[in-house]
Amino acid sequence: MSRSETSAGPRRGRPGYDRPTLVRECVDMFNRHGYEATSMGMLATHLGISKSAIYHHVESKEAILGEALDAALDALEAAFDRVEALSDGPVERVEAAVRATLQALADHMPEVTLLLRLRGNSEVELRAMERRRTITRRFGALLEAGQADGAVRDDVDPRNLARLALGMINSVVDWFRPDGPHTVEEMVRSVTGVVLAGVRG
Amino acid sequence: MSRSETSAGPRRGRPGYDRPTLVRECVDMFNRHGYEATSMGMLATHLGISKSAIYHHVESKEAILGEALDAALDALEAAFDRVEALSDGPVERVEAAVRATLQALADHMPEVTLLLRLRGNSEVELRAMERRRTITRRFGALLEAGQADGAVRDDVDPRNLARLALGMINSVVDWFRPDGPHTVEEMVRSVTGVVLAGVRG
Repeated sequence: MSRSETSAGPRRGRPGYDRPTLVRECVDMFNRHGYEATSMGMLATHLGISKSAIYHHVESKEAILGEALDAALDALEAAFDRVEALSDGPVERVEAAVRATLQALADHMPEVTLLLRLRGNSEVELRAMERRRTITRRFGALLEAGQADGAVRDDVDPRNLARLALGMINSVVDWFRPDGPHTVEEMVRSVTGVVLAGVRG
Repeated sequence: MSRSETSAGPRRGRPGYDRPTLVRECVDMFNRHGYEATSMGMLATHLGISKSAIYHHVESKEAILGEALDAALDALEAAFDRVEALSDGPVERVEAAVRATLQALADHMPEVTLLLRLRGNSEVELRAMERRRTITRRFGALLEAGQADGAVRDDVDPRNLARLALGMINSVVDWFRPDGPHTVEEMVRSVTGVVLAGVRG
């Protein structure tokens, strides 16, 4: 909340926005009010520009949503691509996946926040939710390899263990503030420590 | 999603709803579409009754929200009241808090889901979020007592450790289904095991 409020006020007297700034401001509004409850009129009022000035940059509200979700999902998928290419042991790969996911969250906090709150009310949302489920499955596969190796606890099925670990990891978007008392590196280190302790065999 | 779809279709031919059923159906709609995006007209259409028939039971959409949030928060607060009254050691109290929170979530899944998605857009939401923060602080205090005792890891501050553990615990509303392959008891046992392993010193 404080993040949006300090960075997202209308900038009166400014002639316009570049596209990335405009998209970021819209994402902040979606996170504050909910995507469906945010109209193009509300975005225009918030930005202090006309609706047609918004349409100059983006074709629709859904296009902004799609672009933000792509940014979040591309970063998360790239993280798993890198981790799966590692030749390390199973626990090291699980640890690398946790770290890389946390880093992607920190790099794309507003977009990931939007992703985590989707309800599946449109094709764009359903596609994003399917990509998110695929990422959970990829994390589950890393945990399953760790279970086969005896390095990851095997009293919980790997898919549910992935969901639990990701629940802990994703909570970061609700409480971590990059301008707060802890650096991103410190947050990544502590959260990785807690997640790893939870899933180890 | 499947939960809502199996239980929440309009019941045509039925003259009316009792109040608890009506509130539950409305909460399902809020969770599906978002509270702000759900109008009284949508609720009436979904229920297959008139808006005035809804107003016969409840004074406003916000009254339904408030009632649902109270149910979730009352259950969570009662869980912490019981745990804090225990004379057990710090780790046992942390474990009891995790179990009791998971049980409250399982007992009030739709209402807790609604609580977890609030954005603070009204007095009712802000009050509920403040009650939720107080619960997080109470969990943090139990963890802090465990740290003083050497039983809980002390490399993460207790408030953040509480947020991480609650992130894992709360993820249950997104994936646990009481009619799925695992019973509530099994879910409570496995999730408690993973959370405890994560926070132990």
